[in-house]
Amino acid sequence: MRTRTETYNFAAGPSTLPEEVLRRASEEMLNYRGCGYSVLEMSHRGPLFQEILSSTTYSLKTILQVPDDFEILFLPGGGTQEFAAIPLNLMTEGGSADYAITGYFAKLAAEEAEKYGRVQYCCDMSSENFCRIPDQSDLRFHDGASYFYFCANNTVYGTEWQYDPQTPGIPVVADMSSDILTKYINFHNYGLIYAGVQKNLAPAGMALVIVRKSLLGKELSITPKIMSYRLQAEKESMLNTPPCWNIYMLGLMLDWVRSIGGIGELVRRKEQRANLLYSYLDESSLFHAHARKGSRSYMNVTFSTGNAATDKEFIQQAEASGLVNLKGHRKLGGMRASLYNAMPVEGAEKLVEFMKEFEVHHI
Amino acid sequence: MRTRTETYNFAAGPSTLPEEVLRRASEEMLNYRGCGYSVLEMSHRGPLFQEILSSTTYSLKTILQVPDDFEILFLPGGGTQEFAAIPLNLMTEGGSADYAITGYFAKLAAEEAEKYGRVQYCCDMSSENFCRIPDQSDLRFHDGASYFYFCANNTVYGTEWQYDPQTPGIPVVADMSSDILTKYINFHNYGLIYAGVQKNLAPAGMALVIVRKSLLGKELSITPKIMSYRLQAEKESMLNTPPCWNIYMLGLMLDWVRSIGGIGELVRRKEQRANLLYSYLDESSLFHAHARKGSRSYMNVTFSTGNAATDKEFIQQAEASGLVNLKGHRKLGGMRASLYNAMPVEGAEKLVEFMKEFEVHHI
Repeated sequence: MRTRTETYNFAAGPSTLPEEVLRRASEEMLNYRGCGYSVLEMSHRGPLFQEILSSTTYSLKTILQVPDDFEILFLPGGGTQEFAAIPLNLMTEGGSADYAITGYFAKLAAEEAEKYGRVQYCCDMSSENFCRIPDQSDLRFHDGASYFYFCANNTVYGTEWQYDPQTPGIPVVADMSSDILTKYINFHNYGLIYAGVQKNLAPAGMALVIVRKSLLGKELSITPKIMSYRLQAEKESMLNTPPCWNIYMLGLMLDWVRSIGGIGELVRRKEQRANLLYSYLDESSLFHAHARKGSRSYMNVTFSTGNAATDKEFIQQAEASGLVNLKGHRKLGGMRASLYNAMPVEGAEKLVEFMKEFEVHHI
Repeated sequence: MRTRTETYNFAAGPSTLPEEVLRRASEEMLNYRGCGYSVLEMSHRGPLFQEILSSTTYSLKTILQVPDDFEILFLPGGGTQEFAAIPLNLMTEGGSADYAITGYFAKLAAEEAEKYGRVQYCCDMSSENFCRIPDQSDLRFHDGASYFYFCANNTVYGTEWQYDPQTPGIPVVADMSSDILTKYINFHNYGLIYAGVQKNLAPAGMALVIVRKSLLGKELSITPKIMSYRLQAEKESMLNTPPCWNIYMLGLMLDWVRSIGGIGELVRRKEQRANLLYSYLDESSLFHAHARKGSRSYMNVTFSTGNAATDKEFIQQAEASGLVNLKGHRKLGGMRASLYNAMPVEGAEKLVEFMKEFEVHHI
């Protein structure tokens, strides 16, 4: 039996959430603000839920400074569903799209898009085991591409784009599943950004899509209604019963973000957490970071000892000390410390302390 | 401000849930059984969530007596997503499917299927304003249909199939979104049953699909991976991050179902609730039921006074007395009392009492 205060949860997603958010969800579970029933029991077309939906949308719009020419959509599913929805909505009939292959999920997205048009790679970083993000000059764009797709943060390999890629007029689509709400977004550089919500936003089972209005209405005729961005925009994400509770939880998360000081404070905290870990990794004789400098993720720090048995021992001992879910993704092995918004700086400090102690006994 | 005990929530879905379930969800919100974190924060591939997934699947299998030659899938989205997924998985290339048009959602399902093949109607009850379910002998099947589709309970119009339709060898697909877990299902008569979970099963944002294994592997090449029943079956619903918390909540619901006595007790309660209401409606001079005898839904009782102003007054006064969300669907107007599993028999009693009192003052 373990208390929350004894536990730092480094899971890559679903992942740690602010205690304040969970506490409020728990308190409001049986009776939402005196209406006599739970958010879970609310008609999605009634005034109470409408208020939750509109205030969540408003919070997101103000916190992320989403311009008026973008639609904010809350859609069922998650990233994998959007892998199909993006080509279904943006690929011209018989057309092509450009993909930057910088990791596991970018590759999956490209494979799914191949069902709906021709996919062309702008870069393929697999030969370097995805340890770095390409430079702008490494990207090769193709004439007539309907869009350019990249994954802003590669959860599996622990790399993150530190710049907004520029294209020759091709709309830019970004998977920000694991780094949305951790940085300022210059929407000017984007046609569409999206995120599976289960890392920095809300419980799993929903995707947030923020799409430029001028890109709507191009869906292929085979697009399922539920995946049509145009229809979902027309119906304000209420084409069907939406994942209501996830929208409510996102609202609570955004209240929390505002209460601590917004994106500025989240940026300060992410830098503090990640710098603690990378500084130590760069001087450690036992552990080494996977991602190259200049490409390193603030959210997912991947590292190993280079020895599978030692890695395993480390993960087990850390778990016993309340530093849980540090096992790396099966594609890369080793360890991964996911440092999403709800991870206190103290969590990174404790982890570094523990690593130092472990190193002393293993050198 | 209203307490739960002062409130009976007749919403059509999302809808009322057992207080025991909400209480347990609330208590476990910050720390799931001493692991130090919430179900919301759990890696979906970790042992804790795997245990939740497998025990929920097992509960469902035993309570519904699902035979071994069926797969149980937990999929993101809800009914609307399955409207597309069903033809994408079951329609042969260039083929056709038979649909029984008995209400609003059956019609929507048929319209969506038209994107993926030829849709033929077995019956169209719109000429009778969907007040009854067709007899077996009214159904016209078509040669070569890939499947026959019907909606077991029509939430909007308040009708419900009281028999399992028989086809000349065509696999039967049933939308049981609003009456699953309220009756024994003879799986022998079905190829696939599914349900958006937000009425009798769990919070909105997920669909339960129970499909005969022999029907898997026929998906069209354009099927998004997330919608492929074959892939989802191979990955045990974990192709991507599933709607984890909804699966957990379904598990709690099933614990509750078992604790009160299983399907048998749910059948007894549904009959008690619905009979109370229909008996009164059949003798009332003010209110009348929409659905014909023999076709009436146990879950959604639709009725009106025949006068829109009086209906409105009734809905408002009921709301003020804690009988909430009685407004009918916009397609039919009038009132709708949804009596899902979590509605206590007392809720139906209170409603009838209130209707009697209202009638005295309006005749």
